[in-house]
Amino acid sequence: MAYRVPGFRAAGVACGIKPSGELDLALITSDRPADAAAVFTRNRFPGAPVIVSRRHLRGRRAQAVVVNSGISNVATGAQGLQNARSMCRQTASLLGLRASDVQVSSTGVIGEMLPMDRIAAGIARAAKELSATGWSRAARAILTTDTKPKLAQVTSKRFAMLGIAKGAGMVMPNMATMLAYIVTDLAVDAEFLRDVLGEAVASTFNCLTIDGETSTSDTVLVLANGAAGNRPLGPRSAGARDFRKALADVSGALTEKLALDGEGVTRIARIEVRGARSDRSADAVARKVANSLLVKTALFGADPNWGRIVQAVGAAGVPFSPGRLGIQIGGAELLRGGQLVASSDSRRRASLAMRRKRVEIGVSLGTGPGRASVLTTDLGYGYVRINAEYTT
Amino acid sequence: MAYRVPGFRAAGVACGIKPSGELDLALITSDRPADAAAVFTRNRFPGAPVIVSRRHLRGRRAQAVVVNSGISNVATGAQGLQNARSMCRQTASLLGLRASDVQVSSTGVIGEMLPMDRIAAGIARAAKELSATGWSRAARAILTTDTKPKLAQVTSKRFAMLGIAKGAGMVMPNMATMLAYIVTDLAVDAEFLRDVLGEAVASTFNCLTIDGETSTSDTVLVLANGAAGNRPLGPRSAGARDFRKALADVSGALTEKLALDGEGVTRIARIEVRGARSDRSADAVARKVANSLLVKTALFGADPNWGRIVQAVGAAGVPFSPGRLGIQIGGAELLRGGQLVASSDSRRRASLAMRRKRVEIGVSLGTGPGRASVLTTDLGYGYVRINAEYTT
Repeated sequence: MAYRVPGFRAAGVACGIKPSGELDLALITSDRPADAAAVFTRNRFPGAPVIVSRRHLRGRRAQAVVVNSGISNVATGAQGLQNARSMCRQTASLLGLRASDVQVSSTGVIGEMLPMDRIAAGIARAAKELSATGWSRAARAILTTDTKPKLAQVTSKRFAMLGIAKGAGMVMPNMATMLAYIVTDLAVDAEFLRDVLGEAVASTFNCLTIDGETSTSDTVLVLANGAAGNRPLGPRSAGARDFRKALADVSGALTEKLALDGEGVTRIARIEVRGARSDRSADAVARKVANSLLVKTALFGADPNWGRIVQAVGAAGVPFSPGRLGIQIGGAELLRGGQLVASSDSRRRASLAMRRKRVEIGVSLGTGPGRASVLTTDLGYGYVRINAEYTT
Repeated sequence: MAYRVPGFRAAGVACGIKPSGELDLALITSDRPADAAAVFTRNRFPGAPVIVSRRHLRGRRAQAVVVNSGISNVATGAQGLQNARSMCRQTASLLGLRASDVQVSSTGVIGEMLPMDRIAAGIARAAKELSATGWSRAARAILTTDTKPKLAQVTSKRFAMLGIAKGAGMVMPNMATMLAYIVTDLAVDAEFLRDVLGEAVASTFNCLTIDGETSTSDTVLVLANGAAGNRPLGPRSAGARDFRKALADVSGALTEKLALDGEGVTRIARIEVRGARSDRSADAVARKVANSLLVKTALFGADPNWGRIVQAVGAAGVPFSPGRLGIQIGGAELLRGGQLVASSDSRRRASLAMRRKRVEIGVSLGTGPGRASVLTTDLGYGYVRINAEYTT
């Protein structure tokens, strides 16, 4: 499948940040200014690139994105901020843009300074290698410990959209960062773009929990350059629904790729909570179950251990009636009205469901219309090996 | 060391709930009514014994405690409530008490019915075996997967106090429960007893986090029977301070024993947060660090990975100034003013500190007077093995 979107070019080069010699610098550009929206980490200790990119995005426009992997530029103080700004200036000068038109990200080890000479050379080379089909290389250049590049696209007669992403959580020490860049040739009203991105992120990237950690560099950025020639989309435009769906689909596809490529992951599970008083309550319950170490190790062990799910639900701090609680695994009902369902067929079906690569866990609270869905991963020896045996 | 407190007797018997034939029923009695206070699980799906014990404690008096291990009597509906009440009635009738004078706990597998005939026989035998020195057997009879019984005592010229406890978190599937029973021969005003227990639990048991889970049966109960002949202690009594200290000491000693005996635990760490805007903010930061999977696996790997601590601090949702953040491991300063301390001596000392059995991790926020301290454990292969390989 050829990944391309009219008006956008991309490149990925190796500039020597990663000792392995792998690709470690990506560049994405649009041939015209693009409407831009982003969701950044909520971590209170954000990396320098996040601080700089947030500022540059105030005008809701961007025309280029420069990303390095290997070193994260986090906990680097004033020098780190200078370095992030310098990456934007260099990129802008090579492409004939203003620095504020450039978004910047860095991912990798915390607390080290970027090798600015190598990065400058890398940006210069990437600018020369930019091409409409450079997405696979760009997708590889933003990886740290992911095992494979992650790309997703949607094409229709009217527009194209593609996204690239790198690993979420469960990654090598100091490198837990989720980055995603999505581009489309649609013209989209900047405010509408921000709203639709917010919705898409809330139901996809933000519903993935691998280890409950929040990286200092998480970024999801979308650029809409209007090369499709449409009138800018707003909430009431004819194409709004298709655009919304495309952004949710690309985000969802990238999220599932992130989950499956979490290091040490052997199995993923979707936690579906129904019947809470509100969606917010349902979300709290779903996240408590999804982040429960006992649930995650049971997933690894393929153990249909409903008792652990019950415990997590009860600990979520959300009011519910124990006498109405229901638990289903893979559609098989194990707990109903707060009591064990005495059916060996049910248990057998739940056991089989737990052995699959994707598991569905249902929780029914029976107290209201609130619903939520969260995607989680198992926790096994691989996670411990990767996160304990590596030593800084 | 002889464990005994005037006026109290204890027993532990094997009544056949545990297939292994180990001790599985404990009985504790006072020769006179005792003032009582308890802290129960905040899990919204409490076990039947918690529901019954809460009700019995309304009068703030108790004279006996009956505990079985092996089956938890959780998710057992109306029959489970009947069974818990029946255990109290049987105990009361053998000892000449009212059912409401009896506290009851059960710990073990969720969702199974108690074998009431065996339990009845066990209670009868335990009542016959009650003795002033039965504490070690009682401490063994409440265990599930703990590797050793946990007892702690404080004696002074004026009074005696002892406590027994069983495992917190990191335990076999469906058996994650923390139980502690503390008795003293002091007379203590019931309201004061409740307040002092609340303080002691807040700074000891509640500051231990092993896997962030909240069991459906957690209970800390204290009985004060007045056999010491003192005038009932109130907040302004001469002996109030010694009593407060004794209860904190016994609770603290039991808490540390619980942490070190968490299954799969090889190392424990105290997270000390200073300089938050409030104690509450400090506590949120300490818990986020203590529950971070990345921090816990770094502990297991003896890796002085300050980057993971920074990430957890930033993700706690507490406002702070990144430019003031400091991190210390074993007293060695690694981050100061938000930036790496470039001292190889500091890193070396932190590395050595991480290899000890007990690690001190300091976090300085520099924004206020708030402090908190939380005890946590490492996360390694043992935890995964125990929690994934066992299959229900």
